[in-house]
Amino acid sequence: MPTGAQPWPTTFFLDGTRGELADPVAIEDPLEIQLAFGDASPAQLAVTLRTPGHDRELAAGLLHAEGIVESAADLVALDEAELGEVPGSRIVARLGSRRDGASTIAARPFLSTAACGLCGKASVDAVFASGFPALPVGPRLTLPLLLELPGRMAPAQELFAQTGGIHAAALFAADGELVVSREDVGRHNAVDKVVGSLLLAGRIPAGETILAVSGRIGFEIVQKALRAGVPVLAAVGAPSTLALRLAARAGMTVVGFVRPGRCNVYCGIERIAG
Amino acid sequence: MPTGAQPWPTTFFLDGTRGELADPVAIEDPLEIQLAFGDASPAQLAVTLRTPGHDRELAAGLLHAEGIVESAADLVALDEAELGEVPGSRIVARLGSRRDGASTIAARPFLSTAACGLCGKASVDAVFASGFPALPVGPRLTLPLLLELPGRMAPAQELFAQTGGIHAAALFAADGELVVSREDVGRHNAVDKVVGSLLLAGRIPAGETILAVSGRIGFEIVQKALRAGVPVLAAVGAPSTLALRLAARAGMTVVGFVRPGRCNVYCGIERIAG
Repeated sequence: MPTGAQPWPTTFFLDGTRGELADPVAIEDPLEIQLAFGDASPAQLAVTLRTPGHDRELAAGLLHAEGIVESAADLVALDEAELGEVPGSRIVARLGSRRDGASTIAARPFLSTAACGLCGKASVDAVFASGFPALPVGPRLTLPLLLELPGRMAPAQELFAQTGGIHAAALFAADGELVVSREDVGRHNAVDKVVGSLLLAGRIPAGETILAVSGRIGFEIVQKALRAGVPVLAAVGAPSTLALRLAARAGMTVVGFVRPGRCNVYCGIERIAG
Repeated sequence: MPTGAQPWPTTFFLDGTRGELADPVAIEDPLEIQLAFGDASPAQLAVTLRTPGHDRELAAGLLHAEGIVESAADLVALDEAELGEVPGSRIVARLGSRRDGASTIAARPFLSTAACGLCGKASVDAVFASGFPALPVGPRLTLPLLLELPGRMAPAQELFAQTGGIHAAALFAADGELVVSREDVGRHNAVDKVVGSLLLAGRIPAGETILAVSGRIGFEIVQKALRAGVPVLAAVGAPSTLALRLAARAGMTVVGFVRPGRCNVYCGIERIAG
């Protein structure tokens, strides 16, 4: 059984038969993210329910999505700690002094968890006001390549294959090569892990890339991709209105219902060749 | 087009053909929930991205899930307001004085939005410490009835039929009769709307009922159902480990992957007849 799943004693019913199995179930456990400036003591920023693994990336991605860090250089330290007496884990992110550019944003009331990413800036205007990298003109994608992306993501969806209950996000290069793929019980967490991975590797803005997600495209998924400078978002599921309003205004390409033989292009059709 | 969806100009590709359509897209818009005690001024409690409609129920359900209200009697007022200059809506919930039982819970740091419900109490122990109604011994369900629930929920999933991108939650009586069904871009919101509807109708604890959800079962879905006293949770999707740990300890029945001819019973098998 892979990391990220645990067997659970389960009674199954299948076409009239009944049996018992140890069903692999996706692990969901709390992660506390603490934030400290300079030498000050850390304070709780958020608690998120996530699938363990790549926790530093998750924290880095969340901090980036929230506008608290812009690059790996903003992170003086990013340390993992076990909580001890209670279940779960903790990441402590330490930034420079509060005089950093990040400080004014971090000082606002922070009502978010990784499951939402929202917190008092729930509008297209607010995302534009907080800033994001200019999106590149490319990539220019052929339809066959676009329709292949879910299939290319599948081999990395080890937990989904085991549990049937976990989301995935994956970044692809313009030629369809898989760059990084992450799974999590939370849709937003999977994207935060991918973006955090890029951030820690110094790869933001992401350039001519495509972010593929296994589920739906809500406002916050677009927001996270936009902050990372990803120009194309492709999803197996449907988008929401607010997601599309943000993406269209930013010049992002959004493709939904990407399935064998079909897809819907909601905005940014100029990046689809032919 | 139903309330809750808007047409979006879309280019579709389908089996080699290309065309244009006005695709119905699920509406996602911010709802601010403010909380006031007695005659005091209201303060922001949470901002959630939700599909408009049944906003009072959503607010009531969220307040209930968070342990801030126990019954409709705790709500002196629950008023809708437009925000005016910015998009979105607002619900102002007014409770009695801070000497109410609810006050100590509401006074803790509240980091949640409806998308998470988590906020510093992300453990099974914490849910037990905050309390919930004792679950009834019943209902006792036949397997055929259980497997029919997604089909019985489908006619109420008007927005899903239109958009393909929205979650549903529905409460059923022990005989399989649909009591109330709600849709939302957020899984948690759909459950909050159902529970809020029950709360405002004075129907909590929910008695021998079944809550069916269109997606996966995470910790917070179990938490919300448990607080409402719902003894059976049935989902088209998969559960998480933390959800099952909470449900099993509370004596709740959890059934996942409810699909034609099959399902997995993860705990509480004693409520399944035969």
